[in-house]
Amino acid sequence: MEEIKDIIKKHYQIVFDNEDLLLEAFTHSSYVNEHRQLNLKHNERIEFLGDAVLEVVVSEFLFHQYPEWNEGKLTRLRAQIVCEPSLAAFAKECSFDQYIRLGKGEERMNGRHRPALLCDLFEAFIGALFLDKGMEAAKKFIYQVVLPKIKEDAFSHAMDYKTLLQEELQKDGDIQIQYRTVLEEGPSHAKSFEIEVYANDKLLGTGKGTSKKSAEQNAAQMALKKIVKK
Amino acid sequence: MEEIKDIIKKHYQIVFDNEDLLLEAFTHSSYVNEHRQLNLKHNERIEFLGDAVLEVVVSEFLFHQYPEWNEGKLTRLRAQIVCEPSLAAFAKECSFDQYIRLGKGEERMNGRHRPALLCDLFEAFIGALFLDKGMEAAKKFIYQVVLPKIKEDAFSHAMDYKTLLQEELQKDGDIQIQYRTVLEEGPSHAKSFEIEVYANDKLLGTGKGTSKKSAEQNAAQMALKKIVKK
Repeated sequence: MEEIKDIIKKHYQIVFDNEDLLLEAFTHSSYVNEHRQLNLKHNERIEFLGDAVLEVVVSEFLFHQYPEWNEGKLTRLRAQIVCEPSLAAFAKECSFDQYIRLGKGEERMNGRHRPALLCDLFEAFIGALFLDKGMEAAKKFIYQVVLPKIKEDAFSHAMDYKTLLQEELQKDGDIQIQYRTVLEEGPSHAKSFEIEVYANDKLLGTGKGTSKKSAEQNAAQMALKKIVKK
Repeated sequence: MEEIKDIIKKHYQIVFDNEDLLLEAFTHSSYVNEHRQLNLKHNERIEFLGDAVLEVVVSEFLFHQYPEWNEGKLTRLRAQIVCEPSLAAFAKECSFDQYIRLGKGEERMNGRHRPALLCDLFEAFIGALFLDKGMEAAKKFIYQVVLPKIKEDAFSHAMDYKTLLQEELQKDGDIQIQYRTVLEEGPSHAKSFEIEVYANDKLLGTGKGTSKKSAEQNAAQMALKKIVKK
């Protein structure tokens, strides 16, 4: 407990008024279950809150940062930022993983490195910060830790619709994905392409573009929309 | 446009500084598509933002309102509040449906009464309010319109896990759900029950309770968790 206090003071200039909230954020349910007599609180309730706080801060940032993007693209990037692997990585980057209190079983099962647990921890910390110091303080922390990565384009892979489509389709087992050029016209300096994407020979989407690459991306994006709506 | 300004001023004492934002919230994409030469903005981007604002305000409220609830129960109630049918009903309650600008096709297709469209409109209004006046103003509006319903227990059906389970399972077609009492013990004033729930003879969950009713609810809750995780 002393150490996590020091860490967040040193790195983020945060000093909690109510240290119980900080402790709650760093207490996993497995620890509570092993110490029932202590009547502790685990971090799941404040994680519920932190999750929503993180979402609104990231949404506002993206909204202003990308004024030309439509809501589909914004939603996709947000989902890549506010997702388990990303948030688990942030928790590690902040060294939070070293300070969470786990039960012995969870510790043995390598829980300290489990992405879901670290993701919850990160959100719980944001929830605790929000409760202790309000929205502006939570926002400041998120701007310090999460948002620089967005500017560095660390999530740009999120915009690769072909990869996303492949991942999405292969959730349900092996599927053959094929891109077929159905139109190629115009002079060499102003070509235009139309490409269709098929999954196991079923047409999923069509895309146009001035290159094969961009037409494929657009076809994949349309296919993704169709799948996600189902 | 004049009318919606009057409505929100009269009922919610809200006067927008930037009226373009209000107009944007009340402009459906179908209207923009039919008036391309006007270069209008439709409400989908600010709906993206409003959705997150609504979520955090409702989350904070629930967190404080139900200090004894675990995050599963909080999440479930939040999902019942921040969902299409509820938000569409709020949009109608605020008379927002009368003022959204639709394309002719959408109007003919009864778009003005379509829950998805009304839900988006409600969230877009919250997004516009947040952009124009900040989080506290958005919060005040949500506290005026949405949260009284929570206190009135208008969402209490959300806690009926048996109904939720049934709805969830029957999405995939007709399924036979059965609750079987597997244990009934203790003296009449302190009975305890254990009940299993089956869908088409497959065991989905087990629940304990001091009454059959509560054991069934617990079994349904466990089954729901299992299904949702899939």
